[in-house]
Amino acid sequence: MILLNLKRNSGVSLFMQMVTQLKALMDNDVLKPGFRMPSTRSLAEKHEVHRSTVVKAYEELWALGYMESRPGSYSVVRKRRKRVTTNERSAQGVIPWEERSCEPGKSLHRSFKRLKFKPESSVKQQIINLASLDLDPRLFPVNKFRKSMNRVFSEQGADILRYGACEGFAPLREVIAQRLRIHGISVTADEILITNGSQNGIELILKLLTVPGTRVAIESPTYSNIIPLLNYYNTEIIKIPMTPEGMDLDYLHTVLQENPPAFIYSMPNFHNPTGITTGQEHRERLLALCESYKVPLVEDAFEEEMKYFGKVPMPIKSMDRYHTVVYLGTFSKILFPGIRIGWIAAERDSIRRLVSIKKFSDLSTGTIVQAALEDFCRLGHYDAHIKRMHRHYRKRMLTAFKGLNEHLSAYPQVTWNEPAGGYLIWITLEETGMDAEQLKVLFLDHGVNIVPGTYFFPDHNQSEPPGSVNFRISISTLNETEITEGIIRLAQALKPIYSK
Amino acid sequence: MILLNLKRNSGVSLFMQMVTQLKALMDNDVLKPGFRMPSTRSLAEKHEVHRSTVVKAYEELWALGYMESRPGSYSVVRKRRKRVTTNERSAQGVIPWEERSCEPGKSLHRSFKRLKFKPESSVKQQIINLASLDLDPRLFPVNKFRKSMNRVFSEQGADILRYGACEGFAPLREVIAQRLRIHGISVTADEILITNGSQNGIELILKLLTVPGTRVAIESPTYSNIIPLLNYYNTEIIKIPMTPEGMDLDYLHTVLQENPPAFIYSMPNFHNPTGITTGQEHRERLLALCESYKVPLVEDAFEEEMKYFGKVPMPIKSMDRYHTVVYLGTFSKILFPGIRIGWIAAERDSIRRLVSIKKFSDLSTGTIVQAALEDFCRLGHYDAHIKRMHRHYRKRMLTAFKGLNEHLSAYPQVTWNEPAGGYLIWITLEETGMDAEQLKVLFLDHGVNIVPGTYFFPDHNQSEPPGSVNFRISISTLNETEITEGIIRLAQALKPIYSK
Repeated sequence: MILLNLKRNSGVSLFMQMVTQLKALMDNDVLKPGFRMPSTRSLAEKHEVHRSTVVKAYEELWALGYMESRPGSYSVVRKRRKRVTTNERSAQGVIPWEERSCEPGKSLHRSFKRLKFKPESSVKQQIINLASLDLDPRLFPVNKFRKSMNRVFSEQGADILRYGACEGFAPLREVIAQRLRIHGISVTADEILITNGSQNGIELILKLLTVPGTRVAIESPTYSNIIPLLNYYNTEIIKIPMTPEGMDLDYLHTVLQENPPAFIYSMPNFHNPTGITTGQEHRERLLALCESYKVPLVEDAFEEEMKYFGKVPMPIKSMDRYHTVVYLGTFSKILFPGIRIGWIAAERDSIRRLVSIKKFSDLSTGTIVQAALEDFCRLGHYDAHIKRMHRHYRKRMLTAFKGLNEHLSAYPQVTWNEPAGGYLIWITLEETGMDAEQLKVLFLDHGVNIVPGTYFFPDHNQSEPPGSVNFRISISTLNETEITEGIIRLAQALKPIYSK
Repeated sequence: MILLNLKRNSGVSLFMQMVTQLKALMDNDVLKPGFRMPSTRSLAEKHEVHRSTVVKAYEELWALGYMESRPGSYSVVRKRRKRVTTNERSAQGVIPWEERSCEPGKSLHRSFKRLKFKPESSVKQQIINLASLDLDPRLFPVNKFRKSMNRVFSEQGADILRYGACEGFAPLREVIAQRLRIHGISVTADEILITNGSQNGIELILKLLTVPGTRVAIESPTYSNIIPLLNYYNTEIIKIPMTPEGMDLDYLHTVLQENPPAFIYSMPNFHNPTGITTGQEHRERLLALCESYKVPLVEDAFEEEMKYFGKVPMPIKSMDRYHTVVYLGTFSKILFPGIRIGWIAAERDSIRRLVSIKKFSDLSTGTIVQAALEDFCRLGHYDAHIKRMHRHYRKRMLTAFKGLNEHLSAYPQVTWNEPAGGYLIWITLEETGMDAEQLKVLFLDHGVNIVPGTYFFPDHNQSEPPGSVNFRISISTLNETEITEGIIRLAQALKPIYSK
């Protein structure tokens, strides 16, 4: 016996009231699975509604899986599979996700966990972060960028919210092409693809140029996030040792003679992690080698704009007459990392191929931020911001040099380079009796965080020279006081070791 | 003989003036390669500057590759590799990019070109676009979103411009978890990963669950952009035919018995391209099959929010007690496609693995837009927008049904379905004597664009039933007048064929 409470003129149709109330009765097991429903005629008569209303309601409940018909043309309440609340969910699933995850995926997962290694520190004081290559948010031109954002919303409105071009927002590609001229690079907008930061650019290039087993030459040490990716793509990593002048070109030459790789990945400016900048002759020879062996050169110019000491040669791409260089640029290391906008500048046809690859990867990079960035650059705010960054970081880097000299030059076991710009200094310790991770813990106990050098070597257990311990410090998020304090803490941590 | 024009008290250091002027002389070949430079002493004396200034300037020119030293301790102008202007660049490069591009990359490129196939139309009138699955920008809540954007800039400032969490902006994950409850899905924020739209989600899942040769089951026809991606990853595509009730589950059962795939990809709501929505029983059986064969089910809910006729069962994920379903959601098909924000809701451990994979792919999705979206949702604007979309598209879809009935029901060779929501209608033509691409051209000549059905079949030359021609129309970018006019044009194009 079903009793519904149908209200006329309630603003909700009788059909909808009927569906809702019957569903509630079934959901609460008042009408249990198997219960034989009254005929449409009898339910209609009892509630004084048109029979077609009941027919429609039954059809709806049938469609939603609440009822099913039985031979003999009557309907019963169906045994439904219930919605599951958080509490009801099983702790044990049926899919063994751990096993299902493919080996390459697992290796990334392991790398990620390793890279996220953050030992607990017993120190209560604020940790000084000489590890992070994020930027100092105190220098962000937030308000100017907010205004650019507003301008694109009012001037371009809905257009920037539709699907964007896969190759990137055309005016931004134009602005980037123009800006590259400052660095001696002549490319047109159609030689530029906008990426979700440089990491996305690197992956697109891997997808274009490699299959499992392909050889890729990288500097050793190198950018830590490229190593798991090369492993994921099952490439064979050819390690080119770094010398104080940059990648060892004699070694590279031998590699090229024996079996040229699919591409060479290099950071000529303020190399991550060593901070080394190569000279003009090194750049010319590297390009000439790539040209004569027909091997693409991927020039990662992640800190191209941070030449605040004014002493860095032009990018290799500026000499690229024969379309050999794939140039990676980014806004992450000078403006805002969180906007995730970088680009690839390369030969036109390879850009077209990369566009196809990107399309099937994420359709395109979001347009809003690209449009705001274009406005911001076009109005000159980007140039002004770069000048300001140069002013600050020139001083900050000199402060770091001064701090290292004052507090660490007493220990002959400690050496470091003085980079020509950027954010990174590479420090080498001898005779510590510790490995890199132990050293990281030691420093954390003294309230300062660094990145162990091992993270940057493809084999992860290397140091240069062998037997030493390397670590990378970054001044990118810190002001002068913090940099000095961080270095003092490094010295304090080392004192007991070297004073024995 | 070198004559420099050095100005004291000009605000530019003598060193810098010297470097700049010498560089200019060398760049312009006034001082030619091989020219023997004067000694530092003689240049210093001539210009009455300190000798150390000249030494510093020479060192700088040496570092920049303008000079080199010769035995006998003098320096000459170095034969430099010149910067290349656009005009000077060679038409022919040294790298044969076409050959270098790996086969999977090439196949994507070919797919992209094919998907971009846009025949020229001889018609001058404005084409009515029944092809695009973009949204109607006239319905975008631009101003409300702009205000959300402003609010996050003023309230969160620089924080949203730093590197963001790889798994996504925490408050947005929270909002999505809450919103999923409306659809009967109980998940917590840590079971959600933010992606660059659904396409990015699909690729991440492929990376997690497949290696070359892995079998993947998809509906046939299916979302056209997944096909090249499955080919790119060298998976073996298992085609499950579509019936009017959805994926053929008897067929699927046989596949599962013989050799279960790594996952099954399905669109239970408003299936792309056929518009079919599966019923509750179909959903329960599909889930039960996946559970008993321990095969993950990827539920692509790209139009979950577009249930404007109110007649669609809950998502399969809502019944997922045993963590079998990987749920793909997106804002692209209801709010703005251009923001490129989607998500994956899945078992906690698989989300952690997907986060690692995403990290090495692009570090994270940009934070600004995620933060603005969270604000927009939290203030209720998203719900209000959905209501508005429902109001409009309910009417638009009914208009489409009416137009099809009025203008095409005269031809028994033309059939279509009436979807329970969403944007897509699948039309099947018999006895046209044309293939799908010819039909597209015919329609374009009549001022209306559609997508050929062949794009959605893995083999690209299929139709259902065989011998017919299918095409997909989308009402997503058009108002009622445009929809009616588009359908009239389809009818006009078909009239000469069917009136013979």
